[in-house]
Amino acid sequence: MPFSFRLAAADGAARAGEIDTAHGLVHTPAFMPVGTQASVKGVHHDDVRAAGAEILLGNTYHLMLRPGAERVAALGGLHAFMRWPHPILTDSGGFQVMSLAALRKVTEAGVTFRSHLDGAMVELSPERATQVQILLGSDIAMQLDECVRLPADRSEIERAMLLSLRWAERCKRAFEAAAPGRALFGIVQGGDDPELREESARALVAMDFPGYAVGGLAVGETQEVMLGIVEATTAVLPRERPRYLMGVGTPADILAAIGRGIDMFDCVMPTRNGRHGLAFTRFGPINIKNAHHADDRRPLDAESRCPAAREFSRAYLHHLFRSGEVLGGTLLSVINLYYYQDLVAGARAAIRTGRFADYAAAVREGWAAKRDAGGA
Amino acid sequence: MPFSFRLAAADGAARAGEIDTAHGLVHTPAFMPVGTQASVKGVHHDDVRAAGAEILLGNTYHLMLRPGAERVAALGGLHAFMRWPHPILTDSGGFQVMSLAALRKVTEAGVTFRSHLDGAMVELSPERATQVQILLGSDIAMQLDECVRLPADRSEIERAMLLSLRWAERCKRAFEAAAPGRALFGIVQGGDDPELREESARALVAMDFPGYAVGGLAVGETQEVMLGIVEATTAVLPRERPRYLMGVGTPADILAAIGRGIDMFDCVMPTRNGRHGLAFTRFGPINIKNAHHADDRRPLDAESRCPAAREFSRAYLHHLFRSGEVLGGTLLSVINLYYYQDLVAGARAAIRTGRFADYAAAVREGWAAKRDAGGA
Repeated sequence: MPFSFRLAAADGAARAGEIDTAHGLVHTPAFMPVGTQASVKGVHHDDVRAAGAEILLGNTYHLMLRPGAERVAALGGLHAFMRWPHPILTDSGGFQVMSLAALRKVTEAGVTFRSHLDGAMVELSPERATQVQILLGSDIAMQLDECVRLPADRSEIERAMLLSLRWAERCKRAFEAAAPGRALFGIVQGGDDPELREESARALVAMDFPGYAVGGLAVGETQEVMLGIVEATTAVLPRERPRYLMGVGTPADILAAIGRGIDMFDCVMPTRNGRHGLAFTRFGPINIKNAHHADDRRPLDAESRCPAAREFSRAYLHHLFRSGEVLGGTLLSVINLYYYQDLVAGARAAIRTGRFADYAAAVREGWAAKRDAGGA
Repeated sequence: MPFSFRLAAADGAARAGEIDTAHGLVHTPAFMPVGTQASVKGVHHDDVRAAGAEILLGNTYHLMLRPGAERVAALGGLHAFMRWPHPILTDSGGFQVMSLAALRKVTEAGVTFRSHLDGAMVELSPERATQVQILLGSDIAMQLDECVRLPADRSEIERAMLLSLRWAERCKRAFEAAAPGRALFGIVQGGDDPELREESARALVAMDFPGYAVGGLAVGETQEVMLGIVEATTAVLPRERPRYLMGVGTPADILAAIGRGIDMFDCVMPTRNGRHGLAFTRFGPINIKNAHHADDRRPLDAESRCPAAREFSRAYLHHLFRSGEVLGGTLLSVINLYYYQDLVAGARAAIRTGRFADYAAAVREGWAAKRDAGGA
């Protein structure tokens, strides 16, 4: 079963569709939980799936260092290794090299860095990043790119964007034929400069990728800047290919980006914030560690599809965090994963019936009203 | 439904029975997972239950300090608070005061200690320990006792044993009438001295408790000493009352103690060892962190009733521990909870058919053979 994308409905700029892969279908707009080291932190795969996730993200940087791409391949690939038989997307490792590795050096050839685990020097070329993802067996691989930290000079942003384009070509050459039926996405770069973004997108489209990502965002810029770049980019991207906004984001970011034509998202926020005591709910975010939850017998949301959100009291969840019980982080992570999946599922249903604007307005109204949030 | 115990079968000294409580039935020999702070560390209640646990242990010391017994009572009691509708046993807090609190002072009146959480001075009398457990709403409460660290002088062991007897009387007076349908167990003390143990047991039996615990063991003594004390004690205890060996133990300890007439056990070992990478299996303990598991595609036990033991490879579990992923500790905790529950379930079935000695021998043989343990 080769990779394919079918656009099923459009509602303004918002789109609903289906990505088909060798490991099953992904309905878009889709949210991908992040399984950094072959585990969505603190959450059992069965709960990730029950929350509604149809596709996971794995981090190439982490997996190539430990347990190692060749080892994962020998163990049957990432799906078998982690026992997730559904679709998997892997990033290229480039972003984590920039944020985690020491002594990194970017040349035309690729990036050389010192592993944060054992200090070994590691080379990650476009060809190696592609090979690693082929070994992992991901359904959707990403080209190696260079993300620059913002703010940066236009010349620096342009240099990295052009380098990323040349790497895109090399990744594509390395990927084709080697991974039949799977997909490699190009990544639009260009920082906060709409013209550079447009140039990057046009060049990638000319290379004809099966999908396009918008990279280098969600790195501290305002939502307005991010959405401006999304608009400038999606205007250039072909309708019939999926669009993936990397590393985004808050529920508000996701709603706004869906409204601007984005199909795929990934973010550590549901699990990271969950571990820190922040629950995403219909009533807006709730910090369960706040003292006023200590005597609150109400569940987080009696109408949630998530059993943990319905069945445990706020008082109990509060107690787990106050007591340092790891179950608290797990339960809030699960609750948040359900929330994110239901957010995009609601968007999909609304788009298919032409009511996305109403849906987004109703969701935002729920956050603003904060009724039943107990003062968050 | 008042507390009751029914002896269903005996096989040598080993016994199988049923404890009935207002929250349901407990089949004995029973293993109670420890929910120290109203959570079995790292494990969702649903998994604790699915493993086969019919009763949980809660720690009075922890719960009285946080979230507080009065708060738990106002929230509907411990069953409702933690959403465990099945039987709960609480200890009296005495053991943790000795092991965790600073500046503790034991007098005839009770024990005064400095909370390890906020430094507040707290008084725990026999009456308060009983009241706290009544507020928590546990199905089985324990008398306050004083455990002495071994080795200790006979005079010191005797002093603490006699004090514990006087406290037993006070707890019984405080408990009766206040908690109809629930049970308060007396705790046999007397250190490693069989005569003192016998004296303690006889005095408690004269007070007529609905069940008896053997306390102050599993504190570093040899298994031989522990079993000797168990034999000396159970010889004095009435057949028709349940017997609970507190804080025990390894699978080998449990098998041996069942063979000497013990009905109930609790221990943090399945979860604590699980968090540290040690899995209990039919083939003996397996340290999943050992390097030779890194490429092992086999599950821990393809025939286990536990899904995690069947479905995840040793290589993947090894990777989770090597990567510091909390899911590793959770999965091994669950695997170990299933193992412990299956161990006692097997004992129950064997006792009822008069084959306990064969069962225990077969289990020990599996550990010794270490076939399929992959070198543990």
